Amino acid sequence: MGNAINENLIQGVGLKKLSQINDERGALLHFITNESPEYSGFGEAYISKTNSGIIKGWKLHKIMSQNFIVPVGEMEFVLFDDRENSNTKGKINKFVLNNNTNYFLLTIPPKIWYSFKCVSVNEGLIFNVASIKHDPTEIETLPINNSFIPFVW
Amino acid sequence: MGNAINENLIQGVGLKKLSQINDERGALLHFITNESPEYSGFGEAYISKTNSGIIKGWKLHKIMSQNFIVPVGEMEFVLFDDRENSNTKGKINKFVLNNNTNYFLLTIPPKIWYSFKCVSVNEGLIFNVASIKHDPTEIETLPINNSFIPFVW
Repeated sequence: MGNAINENLIQGVGLKKLSQINDERGALLHFITNESPEYSGFGEAYISKTNSGIIKGWKLHKIMSQNFIVPVGEMEFVLFDDRENSNTKGKINKFVLNNNTNYFLLTIPPKIWYSFKCVSVNEGLIFNVASIKHDPTEIETLPINNSFIPFVW
Repeated sequence: MGNAINENLIQGVGLKKLSQINDERGALLHFITNESPEYSGFGEAYISKTNSGIIKGWKLHKIMSQNFIVPVGEMEFVLFDDRENSNTKGKINKFVLNNNTNYFLLTIPPKIWYSFKCVSVNEGLIFNVASIKHDPTEIETLPINNSFIPFVW
């Protein structure tokens, strides 16, 4: 990703091209290590599977930082910054992740609204390395269409 | 998995059925948290993709503990215990993992030889949460067919 794109990121959001090592037997797809700048502790790893055409969200974590990759299918993410003290308050970011042209690590810090849609013909998988274990008390949700977030899916 | 199977495990190896929460929009596939008994620290998460019919191994990590799931395709794993002080020295374990009937967490402690084959028609993915970052100096390898490990692929 060039600087032009990174300059348009919501403050604290990360988008980094990841490498893959391919050979005739398969591939090694990098994700994240404990030395990655995006890493902020390990709480839980899990997979979210989304069927084609389905939209999920909006969701906000008050504490959890998330690190997403999409190793199967293609997913579109929309993020919204409503943080009082953010330099990018009010900003929307849109990203498309997949496992080839757009094999990115998407880092979502806490207090950012996010939603996503599976835009591939088949299901999409999100692998998440999250900084804390799942805890329903730190999650806020909004309907996918609402009068608060300035984005219409 | 019943006790009968767990009693046959190589000492320190883990095999645990994981849960999935399915609905009409997709699914949530559990993997591992920082409170899981299998968890022994976070060094790196990555994905290994193996093409159909391909066998990889043998490999042994002197330090790294590994936690594997197979969210795509089907993989057969063979493990061999050559540890001097192990109660199960000389033992071979075989496991088949996939994302439905055999959605298991396979935990491989250090000093266990392992190899695997993609036995699905399409590629198989292994999602690994490893206790240390990749370090080639702590890895030993052997050819897939050798006179040391009593298993013929």
